Amino acid sequence: MRYNVVLGVLGSILWLLAGFMFIPLFVAIYYGEPVQTFGIPLAITVLVASIFSFFFKRRDEEWDLKEGFFIVAMGWLIAAVFYSFPYMLEGVPPINALFESMSGVTATGATALTEIESHTKSLLFWRSMTQWLGGMGIIMLFIAILPKLGIAGRQMFRAEVPGLQEEQLRPRIRETAKILWLVYIILSVVELTILLIAGLSFFDAITHTFTSISCSGFSPYSDSIAAFSDPLVEGIIMVFMFLGGANFALHYKTIYSDKKSLIKDQEFKFYLSIIVIGTLVLAYVLFRTEVYSLPDAFRYSSFHVISILTTTGYATVDFNIWPDSSRFILFILMFIGGCAGSTSGGLKVVRFLLLLKYTQKVLFKVIHPKAIVPIRFNNKTVPEDIIHSIVSFMIIYFLIFFASSTLLALMGMDFVTSLSASIATLGNVGPGLGLVGPMANFDAIPDPGKLILIANMWIGRLEVFTVIVLLTPAFWKR
Amino acid sequence: MRYNVVLGVLGSILWLLAGFMFIPLFVAIYYGEPVQTFGIPLAITVLVASIFSFFFKRRDEEWDLKEGFFIVAMGWLIAAVFYSFPYMLEGVPPINALFESMSGVTATGATALTEIESHTKSLLFWRSMTQWLGGMGIIMLFIAILPKLGIAGRQMFRAEVPGLQEEQLRPRIRETAKILWLVYIILSVVELTILLIAGLSFFDAITHTFTSISCSGFSPYSDSIAAFSDPLVEGIIMVFMFLGGANFALHYKTIYSDKKSLIKDQEFKFYLSIIVIGTLVLAYVLFRTEVYSLPDAFRYSSFHVISILTTTGYATVDFNIWPDSSRFILFILMFIGGCAGSTSGGLKVVRFLLLLKYTQKVLFKVIHPKAIVPIRFNNKTVPEDIIHSIVSFMIIYFLIFFASSTLLALMGMDFVTSLSASIATLGNVGPGLGLVGPMANFDAIPDPGKLILIANMWIGRLEVFTVIVLLTPAFWKR
Repeated sequence: MRYNVVLGVLGSILWLLAGFMFIPLFVAIYYGEPVQTFGIPLAITVLVASIFSFFFKRRDEEWDLKEGFFIVAMGWLIAAVFYSFPYMLEGVPPINALFESMSGVTATGATALTEIESHTKSLLFWRSMTQWLGGMGIIMLFIAILPKLGIAGRQMFRAEVPGLQEEQLRPRIRETAKILWLVYIILSVVELTILLIAGLSFFDAITHTFTSISCSGFSPYSDSIAAFSDPLVEGIIMVFMFLGGANFALHYKTIYSDKKSLIKDQEFKFYLSIIVIGTLVLAYVLFRTEVYSLPDAFRYSSFHVISILTTTGYATVDFNIWPDSSRFILFILMFIGGCAGSTSGGLKVVRFLLLLKYTQKVLFKVIHPKAIVPIRFNNKTVPEDIIHSIVSFMIIYFLIFFASSTLLALMGMDFVTSLSASIATLGNVGPGLGLVGPMANFDAIPDPGKLILIANMWIGRLEVFTVIVLLTPAFWKR
Repeated sequence: MRYNVVLGVLGSILWLLAGFMFIPLFVAIYYGEPVQTFGIPLAITVLVASIFSFFFKRRDEEWDLKEGFFIVAMGWLIAAVFYSFPYMLEGVPPINALFESMSGVTATGATALTEIESHTKSLLFWRSMTQWLGGMGIIMLFIAILPKLGIAGRQMFRAEVPGLQEEQLRPRIRETAKILWLVYIILSVVELTILLIAGLSFFDAITHTFTSISCSGFSPYSDSIAAFSDPLVEGIIMVFMFLGGANFALHYKTIYSDKKSLIKDQEFKFYLSIIVIGTLVLAYVLFRTEVYSLPDAFRYSSFHVISILTTTGYATVDFNIWPDSSRFILFILMFIGGCAGSTSGGLKVVRFLLLLKYTQKVLFKVIHPKAIVPIRFNNKTVPEDIIHSIVSFMIIYFLIFFASSTLLALMGMDFVTSLSASIATLGNVGPGLGLVGPMANFDAIPDPGKLILIANMWIGRLEVFTVIVLLTPAFWKR
């Protein structure tokens, strides 16, 4: 690994991180709130960025595989570290601040703030904005950065966006990234406009736009979307969570070329089916076990199925007080997540779909050992090695899930909290169940536990391999 | 599928099942208990066996793949059905009786009897004995039946005994089976003798021998091994659970040829490591969180780590009342299970070990995409397709686990009960946590849930594929 190249790029990332901090600074000025909350972190970031730039000249060289992994993993970690300072300056303990910041830049939405409403409006604006930037980063990561890693990087890219590798929109990657950002920005502007028309204040409209289209879920209210208690607002947010959880490349195609792009896509169809079936089952269970009327059961069911499946994590009611029959459905949805090429987290619908097809194939081959059974997706045969990379991804994902749950349990957390906090962070969902329900916060987790969950968010967002390879001896051997 | 061949074999199995029922009949006579409990089931079994034999002549033909799967799966199911009659005749409701019987013949140890001590001694003897026969069946299955399926059967055999395929003791399979049965019987006689010397009654000694060497865990006492409250008895049982959970082929080798066979085996070493580490961690957690003294913490910790890892499921204390930090350790151990070629259930230690090696390889290949990295086990390279069959096994295992947990949750079971009841039955462990703890019973599960758990025991014991392929359309297509 050429450290000068790597640190040069990280220097550029720091400059970018600093640049974005001007926005909350202006927001603080607008609201007449203390500017040092962002002024001091901005100064520190600029200082460190300058040091990096002074010592390590950024050169536009191709990165090798290790450099690529290192830059991506460290880029996100640096963002989390430097963006944690504003929280600290508003009195949040360092680990909680890092937790909040990592939850922001990874578009997770798990909060460790004990009294959200006690913070300044500029901080809450910033908190939501980091998630929108995080969403942008996720899109950039898949489309623009990973393929830059060259031939070997394709392997990684492939492992991370299984739905996309055969579907590249245009040969020019940078251009593609810009196009997808455009889609992301257009959808954001549309949502903002609609929420404003629906009667939300500009502050409420923009913070919720930031955190729904990016499937992240920070709300400036500790009651989340229940704070509005307005079916119209819920409906609008549901639509944009749903769109945020679908493939942005398909959104682009749908807007600019083939109107049927989404509907023709197998992953999208499966995503839709999960939502429909999940909503029906949950509505039935809620209707049967809770005091809800049938319309209310559907209202809560559809909102939370979409919120959890897309890994947004908003709530319109404290689903943690529901009986386990309902909570378990949400727990299972946390594992699946949204579509590849979206801003959502989780395993991704396409991986889950290919896993089911793989299972079918394995069972068929037990009876017909010599049969050659190709797995098809969107009318194309999926190469064997992609299937294997998906399978190995899942195995590592579940090993991390079980390991982190066990560690939390050993720290004294109960079953439900341990399991749900692990998957809620690893899958970048946000709230879990038990102690970390949607109306509670992660401050209840002891500090070593929070560090594990911070790692989970980081690992989950970077599709596991990017972070985990850094821990292998092979990575550090020459 | 040639139905006459298949039904002919099932007829022979019925004769065998009938034959074993003479033993509890004599026990009933000895204790002066009603003989019809076994007389009627015996008569029914003989009658059905006669009908089978009359219509379908058993011929010593080679089975094809489908026939093999069908015979194995149906053989176990028939055993569970016919062996459920004695329970029904003592007033156990039919589903509970089938549950108990399946738990017997699959050597699981989950009980649905609400008042164990209210039953006749002959029934409790029989209940334990079915587990010992189940253990014998498991050994026979792996060594004698599956390879009979010919070339294609090796595929299946391989999937089921990953540790054994390269390690065949002798070319003659039938002879191998006899030898392993001999080891099984010798160990049983030794355990029986030692338990008698330790002061147990013959009834207690034989029932607990039956259910410890077969890693199954039915006890004639609802308090399980806590009924004795004797460290010596606990120690003896621990040793034989441990031996039951190790590879019987290695026991044979250790006894008759190389004394170091066990110690040289990688799976055995890993099995031992899990027990040592599990015991230390659990003892620490118990010492810290419970009122136990350090010696007591070790006593309970070592017993339950061995009992759960080997999937026996005995208890010397109600571990269900422990805090979640301790319960979670047991929960995780339920997934692993004992060694391949043992009488234990679960995923098996060798699969878990190879999975970890596979994960290591995958991570290495992310950095060195072109490297060829063989996975080695016991100084031999493990072929790629064995790794893939293990990986696909695990995936299907976890899909079933999550599906069955979800169904239980939808029936109103809580999180801990749903998850632990699923793995406790799928892994053939026996007791779970929550409503189905070691001092409770599975009667608390609603009947449809019991049917799912009965299926879990059946699926888990036959190493998943054998049962699941019967559900695929490919199996029934010509």
